[in-house]
Amino acid sequence: MDIITDILRAKRDNESVSRDSLYKFALGIADGTVTDYQASAFLMAAYINGLNPEETLALTMAMRDSGTIVEWDKSLSPLADKHSTGGVGDKMSIILAPLAASIGIKVPMISGRGLGHTGGTLDKLESIPGFNVNLTIDQFKSQIADIGVCMIGQTDELAPADKVLYSLRDATSTVTSIQLICASILSKKLAENPDILVFDVKCGTGAFMQTMEGASELAGALVQISTMSGKKASALITAMNHPIGLTAGNTLEIQESLDILRNRGPADATELTIALVAEMAFHAGIQNGEVLCRNNLANGKAMDIFVKMVEAQGGDIAAFEALPLAPVIMDVRASRTGYWCGPDALVVGQAVRKLGGGRYRVDDVINPLVGWQQELPCGSPVESGTRLGSVHAATKEDAEQALSVIAESFKWDAPSDPLIFQEIRV
Amino acid sequence: MDIITDILRAKRDNESVSRDSLYKFALGIADGTVTDYQASAFLMAAYINGLNPEETLALTMAMRDSGTIVEWDKSLSPLADKHSTGGVGDKMSIILAPLAASIGIKVPMISGRGLGHTGGTLDKLESIPGFNVNLTIDQFKSQIADIGVCMIGQTDELAPADKVLYSLRDATSTVTSIQLICASILSKKLAENPDILVFDVKCGTGAFMQTMEGASELAGALVQISTMSGKKASALITAMNHPIGLTAGNTLEIQESLDILRNRGPADATELTIALVAEMAFHAGIQNGEVLCRNNLANGKAMDIFVKMVEAQGGDIAAFEALPLAPVIMDVRASRTGYWCGPDALVVGQAVRKLGGGRYRVDDVINPLVGWQQELPCGSPVESGTRLGSVHAATKEDAEQALSVIAESFKWDAPSDPLIFQEIRV
Repeated sequence: MDIITDILRAKRDNESVSRDSLYKFALGIADGTVTDYQASAFLMAAYINGLNPEETLALTMAMRDSGTIVEWDKSLSPLADKHSTGGVGDKMSIILAPLAASIGIKVPMISGRGLGHTGGTLDKLESIPGFNVNLTIDQFKSQIADIGVCMIGQTDELAPADKVLYSLRDATSTVTSIQLICASILSKKLAENPDILVFDVKCGTGAFMQTMEGASELAGALVQISTMSGKKASALITAMNHPIGLTAGNTLEIQESLDILRNRGPADATELTIALVAEMAFHAGIQNGEVLCRNNLANGKAMDIFVKMVEAQGGDIAAFEALPLAPVIMDVRASRTGYWCGPDALVVGQAVRKLGGGRYRVDDVINPLVGWQQELPCGSPVESGTRLGSVHAATKEDAEQALSVIAESFKWDAPSDPLIFQEIRV
Repeated sequence: MDIITDILRAKRDNESVSRDSLYKFALGIADGTVTDYQASAFLMAAYINGLNPEETLALTMAMRDSGTIVEWDKSLSPLADKHSTGGVGDKMSIILAPLAASIGIKVPMISGRGLGHTGGTLDKLESIPGFNVNLTIDQFKSQIADIGVCMIGQTDELAPADKVLYSLRDATSTVTSIQLICASILSKKLAENPDILVFDVKCGTGAFMQTMEGASELAGALVQISTMSGKKASALITAMNHPIGLTAGNTLEIQESLDILRNRGPADATELTIALVAEMAFHAGIQNGEVLCRNNLANGKAMDIFVKMVEAQGGDIAAFEALPLAPVIMDVRASRTGYWCGPDALVVGQAVRKLGGGRYRVDDVINPLVGWQQELPCGSPVESGTRLGSVHAATKEDAEQALSVIAESFKWDAPSDPLIFQEIRV
């Protein structure tokens, strides 16, 4: 029996596979010497029987090694990146990157587009007229050296094996495996090659993980495999039963990000961003990271870096702030008196996608103006008739439909989630 | 989610899949509209989580329907076939087919070649000079109408999907699944389309199934799925810790088959063949099948039909009986006094293969003359120095090597296996 079929047999029978064998196998998947049908059989066996940490690490490293690994000059350390598992209203990256840079942590960030009902950082950034997310790796490195922060899209140079495996996983119903997700996320992050990785694992109705059990398992795997690969890493498990912040939709979220960078944004989104940067600061050995963050939001330093980044990447903030509102803005008001606990995250995400703020097919064009704008934070005491929020839509019909499902999902008089459920360090 | 990925998800999560969905999926595997990598992911999930009987049936029927189904004139009924899961010295088919025909049961038999350490009926038949196993389906049908028995090799017309799936299973370590084995065997047998199917599921060191648990599971699945598909079916689980009969090797086994057909063969091989034909007779509603068989071995009717079949397929029995012996024949004698319980089936099978009686690669050429010839049946009381058997080999070195491993596997003074462990009917 050759090495490939022996690995498949072992994984099929839930035996562990040696690091060397699996690394060879994974490199073979990456370079195409292992056939698609053998890779798929492996993915299914790995999905059902799981991969142990050494196996997950070997798969991750081999996927990383399928492409370029970004090399950073030592003088640039500490370099850090954050990865979120995706939520509704999750604009943290846009604030976090310049905020971290403002306290001395370089953030070379490679982000994604909207997926399903969750928005994508690239789509949000592109609502700033002129903002270019398609830089070369050399431009990326040079901007990090110049201003300490750069936000771009995935390139074919980094971890190309992930693209192959992801398309096989999609076609073989093996997407939702903790270890395969972990290998997919980390292969790209390890190719990006910062010193520190912080994970925001969302948990709730609008998250990929809907239970604490699943979120803990994914967070634990991300931190463990990152650490085994030589990175400093931690994860926060954070609430995603309601949208984070007050907005969901591309332009609305950039506007809210600017509010936060100007120190006048909603508390939950501000605090979560600070908590994530504080994790980076902890790993970087920077004392009082949280205090430094608050100061740099108050004194404008974080905003200054954001402006520099936008300019360096061709964006025009003045043009952004002059953008029109969506054609139709329709309010929703409280039907009763009580503690209003906000709309459901999944419902809002789906509604915004349907309004045109997300995609159903990869070539769908996004309408950046549409979305959900909340007037009050979740947990606010309100009287009947209080304005709770509004839908921004292209047409009256769209707005009515979105408002109806969002309003139906409102929760009342329920205890609210903590912002952060759990912090996971090795 | 489309139907294909939904089936993969369900099988991944150990949920059952509807008959219609699975039938469409299996037809898609068969006709190539389901990709190889999706088929492989399915095979791995089916291996690990199993298929329920309805799923196994749907897969089997779709594989059958990927090619021609042989249609028989009703006047030819009862038609029956036997399938053995493979053993050492297993020449039952060669005797069984004409014996069954002699009691009025037509036997359209499609056989295989040697696989691993087990011999193949086609290889044995081809040691008869001129014997042609490559008939068309029309010639096959016409010979069944004429003399009631025909033995040929697998054709590309019948169940071509099995060939595709088998090669994927081989490359993805998903061969040894009870349900996938069952679907593979039955898709071909259902395309051959007899009224009655009898299975000889071997159990022991020289068998595919080494435990009663495994053998029972496979036998149960074969009978259940055959019955669900509308066939009359039963299975015998029979012993394979020692070779069946006194010979292993192509020419030697044909010679032994002639002995049995002339009613002077060893008891175990004779009784097992009669038991298998009696199963067919039971399903065909033929009374006293066992007695009829004994009569037709004694009165030469079975032998007459065998001779007719050989002649119809171009073979020359006189030329066969004039074949030379192998160049080297080396005896082994008892090293002690006691009850000699014979050699191990797997050891004999491997030794005969190594002598040149089997293949390691698909294009290896077989030496029909080599093999193992046992002098006494297992369980015989012997004195030290009694001749127990001989190896027939091409060279002295080959003979010495084979004798040494076979002699080392001899068992002494142990209770012997029953011939038939269990009979399984619905």
